[in-house]
Amino acid sequence: MSGSGCIFCRISEGELPAEMVHEDAELVAFRDLNPQAPVHVLVVPRRHVSSLDGLDDADESLAGRLLLAVRSIARSEGLADDGFRVVVNSGEWAGQTVDHLHFHLLGGRRLTWPPG
Amino acid sequence: MSGSGCIFCRISEGELPAEMVHEDAELVAFRDLNPQAPVHVLVVPRRHVSSLDGLDDADESLAGRLLLAVRSIARSEGLADDGFRVVVNSGEWAGQTVDHLHFHLLGGRRLTWPPG
Repeated sequence: MSGSGCIFCRISEGELPAEMVHEDAELVAFRDLNPQAPVHVLVVPRRHVSSLDGLDDADESLAGRLLLAVRSIARSEGLADDGFRVVVNSGEWAGQTVDHLHFHLLGGRRLTWPPG
Repeated sequence: MSGSGCIFCRISEGELPAEMVHEDAELVAFRDLNPQAPVHVLVVPRRHVSSLDGLDDADESLAGRLLLAVRSIARSEGLADDGFRVVVNSGEWAGQTVDHLHFHLLGGRRLTWPPG
């Protein structure tokens, strides 16, 4: 589902509220409504991409900017020293719940292994 | 630690064995020795980068290629239909055990939430 039916598209467009931590021309980052750690931010491209598997070879630049943005937000959230985990779920068995690519940034506590 | 002291540098250079699933000029992918899922592959840049936090702004292209490679390997491992999870640990609280940037690709079972 894309456009008006996708909640992350609607957040990106300002049609649904979210606690934003970063916005730029290509992506938005906001706090997860069901946080799994003291810091739990979602980093989301404004363009509707269904999942990591939905990225094309032509999306290398977007993919790189997303990953560097996650790193930068980890720093601005104060997670760089103690550490942080980044998780991307693609598809049903991973538990992807919104069909719009998003990176989970988790930190502020010790994370366990395996990762789910 | 970099160079000869880093086990992922040594795998990249062929000095330590690993069950490779992909190699190209910039990255290697091999099976985790302690798999947490039926498929558990590590995707690693050949260049020694200490962690996700160790990526510079100039590394956008490398970051994008790494992420697209993870996606491609998920497809070649047969994970695209059912789904897969990608995890990057940065620093102590995330449980990063080798100080060389690596992406965990997990699939072949249903993954739970929270991710550790």
